Amino acid sequence: MHSPELSRHDTATAGDTLARHLHTQAGAFLRSLRLHSESGADTAGAAEAARALRSSARRISGSLSTFRPLLDPDWADTLRGELGWLSATLALEHSCTSRMVRLLDALSRLSGTSAVPRARVEPAPPGEEPAPGGGTAARRGGALTVGAARAGALLERRLTLARTRAHSAALGALGSSRFHAVADSVALLASELPLAPAAAGPADEVLGMLADVTERRLLDAVAELPLGRAAHPYNAEALVNGLAADPAAEQQDAPWHEVRRLLRLHRYAREAVRPGDDPVLCHAGLVLDHHREAAEASEAAASAARTPRIAPATAYALGVLHADQRHEVEAARFAFQQEWRHATAAVPAP
Amino acid sequence: MHSPELSRHDTATAGDTLARHLHTQAGAFLRSLRLHSESGADTAGAAEAARALRSSARRISGSLSTFRPLLDPDWADTLRGELGWLSATLALEHSCTSRMVRLLDALSRLSGTSAVPRARVEPAPPGEEPAPGGGTAARRGGALTVGAARAGALLERRLTLARTRAHSAALGALGSSRFHAVADSVALLASELPLAPAAAGPADEVLGMLADVTERRLLDAVAELPLGRAAHPYNAEALVNGLAADPAAEQQDAPWHEVRRLLRLHRYAREAVRPGDDPVLCHAGLVLDHHREAAEASEAAASAARTPRIAPATAYALGVLHADQRHEVEAARFAFQQEWRHATAAVPAP
Repeated sequence: MHSPELSRHDTATAGDTLARHLHTQAGAFLRSLRLHSESGADTAGAAEAARALRSSARRISGSLSTFRPLLDPDWADTLRGELGWLSATLALEHSCTSRMVRLLDALSRLSGTSAVPRARVEPAPPGEEPAPGGGTAARRGGALTVGAARAGALLERRLTLARTRAHSAALGALGSSRFHAVADSVALLASELPLAPAAAGPADEVLGMLADVTERRLLDAVAELPLGRAAHPYNAEALVNGLAADPAAEQQDAPWHEVRRLLRLHRYAREAVRPGDDPVLCHAGLVLDHHREAAEASEAAASAARTPRIAPATAYALGVLHADQRHEVEAARFAFQQEWRHATAAVPAP
Repeated sequence: MHSPELSRHDTATAGDTLARHLHTQAGAFLRSLRLHSESGADTAGAAEAARALRSSARRISGSLSTFRPLLDPDWADTLRGELGWLSATLALEHSCTSRMVRLLDALSRLSGTSAVPRARVEPAPPGEEPAPGGGTAARRGGALTVGAARAGALLERRLTLARTRAHSAALGALGSSRFHAVADSVALLASELPLAPAAAGPADEVLGMLADVTERRLLDAVAELPLGRAAHPYNAEALVNGLAADPAAEQQDAPWHEVRRLLRLHRYAREAVRPGDDPVLCHAGLVLDHHREAAEASEAAASAARTPRIAPATAYALGVLHADQRHEVEAARFAFQQEWRHATAAVPAP
C-alpha cells in the first residue's frame, strides 16, 4: 500500500537507521517508565504511563520482528519474548477496564437507560477489594429489568475482580528482577545493538525491502478474510455457532485478530522507514481493535452466564448481551471491509 | 408511485367497475371456501385453501376501505369488520406455524446444526394434543448445547399448543353462524352492492382518485419512518430497549407495521384500478412481512423466557435468540429502505 520512498538518510546504513529508530523508541519506553514510577497515587497518570509503556514495548518488539534479518536473531527473539510478556501483563488491567465499560454501556443501551451516568471504572487502588454485589449497575434500578441489573452487577463483580488481580500482577511485574532486566536491555538498545552483516547495506533499500515483506504478509492475510461476505450487512455470520457447544466462534474470529496484529506490525514498520502515520491504516486498526474488544466482551458475557446458580432472568440478559456484542463484531467486519476497500481504491497496491 | 392510467372501462361508472372487481374477489373467496370444506384430512390442502380465503378476505376488505366513499358506509364498515375478524382468526394458526419454523431454524443456525432436518411443522390433526417435551428440537442433540435444545423444546411446546388452539378456533369460526353470514354477504357483493351517489361518476377518474388517496397515506407514513437511520447498517436501533422493563420495542415497531398495512392497501387499490402486480411494491411488502414475523418471533422468545422455573441455560439461549430476531428486524428495515429508495428512484413520485 506504499511505494518505498527515499528517506532522508540517503547515505546511512540500514543498521544506523534502525539503531536511530530503536533509540527513539527506547527513549519513549524509559520516559514512560519514569512517569509510571513517579505517578504514585495518581491512578489516571499511572494508567496513561502504562499505556505509553505498552505502546513503546510493542513498537520495539515490532521493529525487532520486521528487521530481524539485520540483527543477532537469538538476541532479538529473546528481547521480543520479554517485551511480549511485559505488554501482555500490562495490557490485562486496561482490557478488563474497557471490557467492563463496554458491557455496562451496552446493558444501559439495551435497557434504554443510556442517560444514566457511566459506572465507576477507574482502577481500584491496590489492596482495595471492591465490595461484591455493591456494583453501580445493581444500584441503577429505574427502567432496568431485574435481569439486566443483576447481569450488570455480576459482570461488574467478575471484571472488577479480574482487574484487581491484573493490577496486582502488573505492579508485581514492574517490581520484578525480570522487568529490570528488560528495562536494562532496552536502555542498551541504541548503543549496543547487536547487528547482523546485512545491516551494512544501504538504509533505504534494505529497510524498505523488509517493511515490504511485512506489508505483503498483511495483504495476504487480508486476502484470506471473507470480505465479500462482510460487505453484506446483516449477514448474521458473527452469531453463527453463538449457541454451539464447541467454541467455533473463536475460530472465525482468529483470522481477523491476525490481520489486526499484522496491520499494527505494518504500521510500525512504516513508521521506522518513513515517519508519520497513515490515517487510513490507523482507522482500519481502530476498527479491528473494536472487533477484538467486542469479541472478548461477548465471551465475557457467555462466560458469566455459566456462573452456577444464577437466576434465569440474569442468564437471559447475558444472552441478549452476548448476541449484541457478536453483532458489534459483525459491524466491525463490515466497517473494516469498507475502510479497506476505500484504502485500496485510494492507493494502488504495490 | 403511479400515474393514473386510463383503464379499459372508459365509459363505465365507478360503481360498475368496483362491482366487477368485487365480483372477481368474491368468486375467489367462495372458491377457496369450497376447497377448504372439501380438503378433509388433506392438511396441506386445507392450509392452502385457508391462505387463499384470507387473501380474498383481505382484498375485499381493502376495496371496501379504499372505495368506501362509493358505498353505503355503514354496510361497508360492518362487512369490513366481519372480514377482519375472519382473516385474524384464520391467520393465527399460520402465524404460529411460521413463527415456530423461524425460531427453530434460528436455533439451528445459532447452534451450527443447520444441516439437521427441519422440525415437524404441519398442523396437528384436530384433537391430537402434541406430547409435551417430545419436540423435535429436544431430540436433536448433537452439537446443540443443552440450553439451545431446551429452548427449542420449550418454544415448540408453547407454539404447538398455541397452534392447536388457533386451529380449533379457526374450525369453530368456519362452522359458526357468524361465518355463514359473512359468506352470504360476500356472495351477494356483486349483485346487490349498496352504492353511494358518487359511484355514478366515471370509473377511471373516481377510482383513480380514491386509489391515489390510499397511495398518499402510504407515502406520508413512509415519510415518517426513520429511513435515514435504517440506511446505516448495524445501527443497533432494533435492540435498543431490548432489556427495558416497559415494552418500548413494540412502540418502535408500530410505524413499520402500519406502513406494511398501508402498502398492502395500496397494492390492492392498484389491482382494482389496473390489474397486475408491481414487483417492487410486492417485494417491499415481503420485506415488511419479514419485519413483522421477526418482531413477533423475538417477542415469543422473550415471552418463553418468562416461563417460571426454567434453567438458566434455557433462558440464556432464549436471550440470544431474542437478540438475533431483533437484528433480523433491523435487517428488514435496512432492506426496506433500500427497496424504497430503489422504487422511488425508478418511478418519480406523483
